[in-house]
Amino acid sequence: MPADTTNVTVTLSCPDRPGIVHAVSGALAAADGNIVESAQYGSEVTGRFFMRVDAQVGAGLAALQDELAPVAERYGMDLRVFPTGAPTRTLIMVSKEAHCLNDLLFRQRAGLLPIQIPVIVSNHTDLAPLAGFYGVDFVHVPVTANAKDAAEDRLRALIVEHEVDLVVLARYMQILSDRLCTELAGRAINIHHSFLPSFRGARPYAQAHQRGVKLIGATAHYVTADLDEGPIIEQDVVRVEHNHSAAHLAAMGRDVETRTLRQAVAWHAEHRVLLDGHRTIVFR
Amino acid sequence: MPADTTNVTVTLSCPDRPGIVHAVSGALAAADGNIVESAQYGSEVTGRFFMRVDAQVGAGLAALQDELAPVAERYGMDLRVFPTGAPTRTLIMVSKEAHCLNDLLFRQRAGLLPIQIPVIVSNHTDLAPLAGFYGVDFVHVPVTANAKDAAEDRLRALIVEHEVDLVVLARYMQILSDRLCTELAGRAINIHHSFLPSFRGARPYAQAHQRGVKLIGATAHYVTADLDEGPIIEQDVVRVEHNHSAAHLAAMGRDVETRTLRQAVAWHAEHRVLLDGHRTIVFR
Amino acid sequence: MPADTTNVTVTLSCPDRPGIVHAVSGALAAADGNIVESAQYGSEVTGRFFMRVDAQVGAGLAALQDELAPVAERYGMDLRVFPTGAPTRTLIMVSKEAHCLNDLLFRQRAGLLPIQIPVIVSNHTDLAPLAGFYGVDFVHVPVTANAKDAAEDRLRALIVEHEVDLVVLARYMQILSDRLCTELAGRAINIHHSFLPSFRGARPYAQAHQRGVKLIGATAHYVTADLDEGPIIEQDVVRVEHNHSAAHLAAMGRDVETRTLRQAVAWHAEHRVLLDGHRTIVFR
Amino acid sequence: MPADTTNVTVTLSCPDRPGIVHAVSGALAAADGNIVESAQYGSEVTGRFFMRVDAQVGAGLAALQDELAPVAERYGMDLRVFPTGAPTRTLIMVSKEAHCLNDLLFRQRAGLLPIQIPVIVSNHTDLAPLAGFYGVDFVHVPVTANAKDAAEDRLRALIVEHEVDLVVLARYMQILSDRLCTELAGRAINIHHSFLPSFRGARPYAQAHQRGVKLIGATAHYVTADLDEGPIIEQDVVRVEHNHSAAHLAAMGRDVETRTLRQAVAWHAEHRVLLDGHRTIVFR
Repeated sequence: MPADTTNVTVTLSCPDRPGIVHAVSGALAAADGNIVESAQYGSEVTGRFFMRVDAQVGAGLAALQDELAPVAERYGMDLRVFPTGAPTRTLIMVSKEAHCLNDLLFRQRAGLLPIQIPVIVSNHTDLAPLAGFYGVDFVHVPVTANAKDAAEDRLRALIVEHEVDLVVLARYMQILSDRLCTELAGRAINIHHSFLPSFRGARPYAQAHQRGVKLIGATAHYVTADLDEGPIIEQDVVRVEHNHSAAHLAAMGRDVETRTLRQAVAWHAEHRVLLDGHRTIVFR
Repeated sequence: MPADTTNVTVTLSCPDRPGIVHAVSGALAAADGNIVESAQYGSEVTGRFFMRVDAQVGAGLAALQDELAPVAERYGMDLRVFPTGAPTRTLIMVSKEAHCLNDLLFRQRAGLLPIQIPVIVSNHTDLAPLAGFYGVDFVHVPVTANAKDAAEDRLRALIVEHEVDLVVLARYMQILSDRLCTELAGRAINIHHSFLPSFRGARPYAQAHQRGVKLIGATAHYVTADLDEGPIIEQDVVRVEHNHSAAHLAAMGRDVETRTLRQAVAWHAEHRVLLDGHRTIVFR
Repeated sequence: MPADTTNVTVTLSCPDRPGIVHAVSGALAAADGNIVESAQYGSEVTGRFFMRVDAQVGAGLAALQDELAPVAERYGMDLRVFPTGAPTRTLIMVSKEAHCLNDLLFRQRAGLLPIQIPVIVSNHTDLAPLAGFYGVDFVHVPVTANAKDAAEDRLRALIVEHEVDLVVLARYMQILSDRLCTELAGRAINIHHSFLPSFRGARPYAQAHQRGVKLIGATAHYVTADLDEGPIIEQDVVRVEHNHSAAHLAAMGRDVETRTLRQAVAWHAEHRVLLDGHRTIVFR
Repeated sequence: MPADTTNVTVTLSCPDRPGIVHAVSGALAAADGNIVESAQYGSEVTGRFFMRVDAQVGAGLAALQDELAPVAERYGMDLRVFPTGAPTRTLIMVSKEAHCLNDLLFRQRAGLLPIQIPVIVSNHTDLAPLAGFYGVDFVHVPVTANAKDAAEDRLRALIVEHEVDLVVLARYMQILSDRLCTELAGRAINIHHSFLPSFRGARPYAQAHQRGVKLIGATAHYVTADLDEGPIIEQDVVRVEHNHSAAHLAAMGRDVETRTLRQAVAWHAEHRVLLDGHRTIVFR
């Protein structure tokens, strides 16, 4: 390989029309690029076209960007080019529950998640020691009814300061303002429990137990102003039995939350998730 | 084994108090019984106790019933004794979709489901040939707005005539009256699709597709007057991808309906399902 | 869309080098083609490149083939072009067990599998009525130690006569000759049970029961001269419990065989499976 | 409840014959016991009978033991009585890989596993900081070809010193001697990867990748002198795709190892696993 060969990941979406793949692959060829893995999809729901490419580029990332710029212009593309495997700078928000945070920190450290975690933000201090063990800055930002705006401004400042690309709400038990949700559109992931059927109100595991559900699940989704209704990235379930108590169900729910959130973060950080209106395209 | 040895399955439930297992196992011992497999559970939700026993009984089924009668009386038990493996007489109701019926007929024939199917009832005639291939009576009972009562009376007559123990709604697209649901409490099983989140109204697969869900599921439950809200026997899900169309989702939904209903019918017919108020105890 | 617009599926593989996607998408553009869904993959194991495209082609299938021919020539491609959804002509071979055959026939009839089944071949006659119900020719080809060659010649003749694209061994209990396996390379699919750990010799379910395995599985693979060792298309497992007898395990094994084979046949018939030496690329 | 009421878990196995449940439930009744949950199973493989009971005992644990002692004697029972939920004292052995240890420590701390971990033993020092974060003693016991016996003697001493009930080999990469395996029969759990088909020799994930398997799994089992062949407690699998590299497969393998081992340890610590010769009975 030439000295400047770089592995790059390209993602794009644009209104669907003929010639997109030909134009993009032409730009790749012009930059001495070889496709390692790629997928495309034309959405019948929104009429948009989606593409993700992993390629080895002999002329380097900057040259590829130069080749792609006029293509993006011509087709009205939302185009992004990343060095493959470059870690996504991720701010994690937590409250008191440790299960998701512990899993994300462990995997990041073990090299199993292509993220960096420059800072953890919490409205409580319970999880500071865990952050400390992994050597990650932990910032306590209390949220009070009167000072919610100030807390969100503090968060905005941390996002800027740490050049954050992704915010993960890892069982963060405060609701973000509509304005902040809109600002973070497509770059904030939340996890919540899910049930068949669904249960409104407090103590959902107690309700699920009394209803005798046989499956409990979790949904990881992008944050939007519609609470728990953003585009779904990943869902999973676990089977429960009649002899599991409500507390046991809640414990199993934490397990399925943990692995569902982890998977969503991994796919996002590998640039495998593209937004198709209210749905996601996941090029697994 | 003595000449009269019989394999029996005993199920019971009653208000929980000490001594139940001792009393039941005493009756079994008195009837020369040996326990093959058994499970018990005390429900914290309702305060009831549940028990299921598979046993070999040297003195025969009738002798065992004699021994158990005073025990049932003393503890206020809902007690049932079955010859193990004796087929449950099952009436299947269908409309036009064949997937569940085909699966149940095939498994019954192959000896994989301990049921007999004396008769199939439908408000359409589409599935008569399939019934005919398996040599099962097919009765066409049309349902019109004006003649719904008459249709249900016809069904009641068939249940009596064929000594039916279990009614399976295998994608039967008519709603049963509250009165009939109550009559069939605990001996009619329905199957319906389930989603995370749930979708109201028509065309749920189209809604699920537009919402971009990653799992679609099915729920098998006992029929109650509350539509689709009866005690859940079994649930299952299947994973879907962004490139699956709404039609594809519907096809996958039929698969998960098929295997969820089959499992619920099997457990019911093996007397593994007991009602604990609004939930089920499933001694798998 | 122009009058001649056709939906086509293109699959190809060739030695990996830069420019393949650009060349193929150029041919598609020249034939007025629009990509609906596509995936590419460069194998690090064999150094080959794989591509599958679903496209709408304004100029028609023949025009597309004309555009693609010089591309295929230049890159040494194994290239195939199909009308999307055109059914794969499938010969099914069975012995006495009905579960896989019943499932394939039902799905084909219900429009859930893009195959045609012109003929079923068996070394027994047990399954003739099932074939008859679905109106499919059933040919009894007995296999005796002395007349194995004659039986395989009969099979070859049926493959030619019925213009068969795919042979499915749906629990066919005879071993094909090495020569026939070689002739059918990449177009014959077999299903067999799989265990963790694996068991050699007769009565594998009895061995699995005695060993107390917690999972039993099935593997669908292309047929090769190495018995049960061909490229794997799909695998699945089912969870078993200590109270399941060996017979119960065998019944559950049939279920997992059924759904594993069905999935492999569906992916093959949708041209989603490409051979990468001894492995398969499955563009799901 | 009387002041002395205790929740107890009773497990037992003995040669199968009539009257066992009656005798045990009689002893429970005599000690003012109420059964919360119980299961029994007669093994057709070995002719032994197995029972597990969770009960509330008004007369206390010691009184129950007095009542059960003559029953155990009469039936030749292997009988054990535990205070329900009392933590199992668990020694964990590791080498360099952290995934299983991290999971077990986190769950123990979160109250999700009924174990205590008085000490961690390793032939390396890499995982000492993780043990330190959780405040668990970490003992470095190097293993050399010449000093294997000494290392095992050190382990024996630690087992005695810390009153260890269970040894968990959480990716401990040394083989225990036959003698030690025999000493630890039924109280040492190991985890290893599993494949369909299985692969012998070094670098199994590379082999699995080249073979193109679609599932990789893990098996948790009791340690016996037969390497990786002890009674299976739990198995699980994860689905892999053609675009996963061998390294990716290994990472996914670690995930499935983690959750399979965790489940096996939980069931063991809840006294749900009984040995039936070479198989396990798991009263889930």
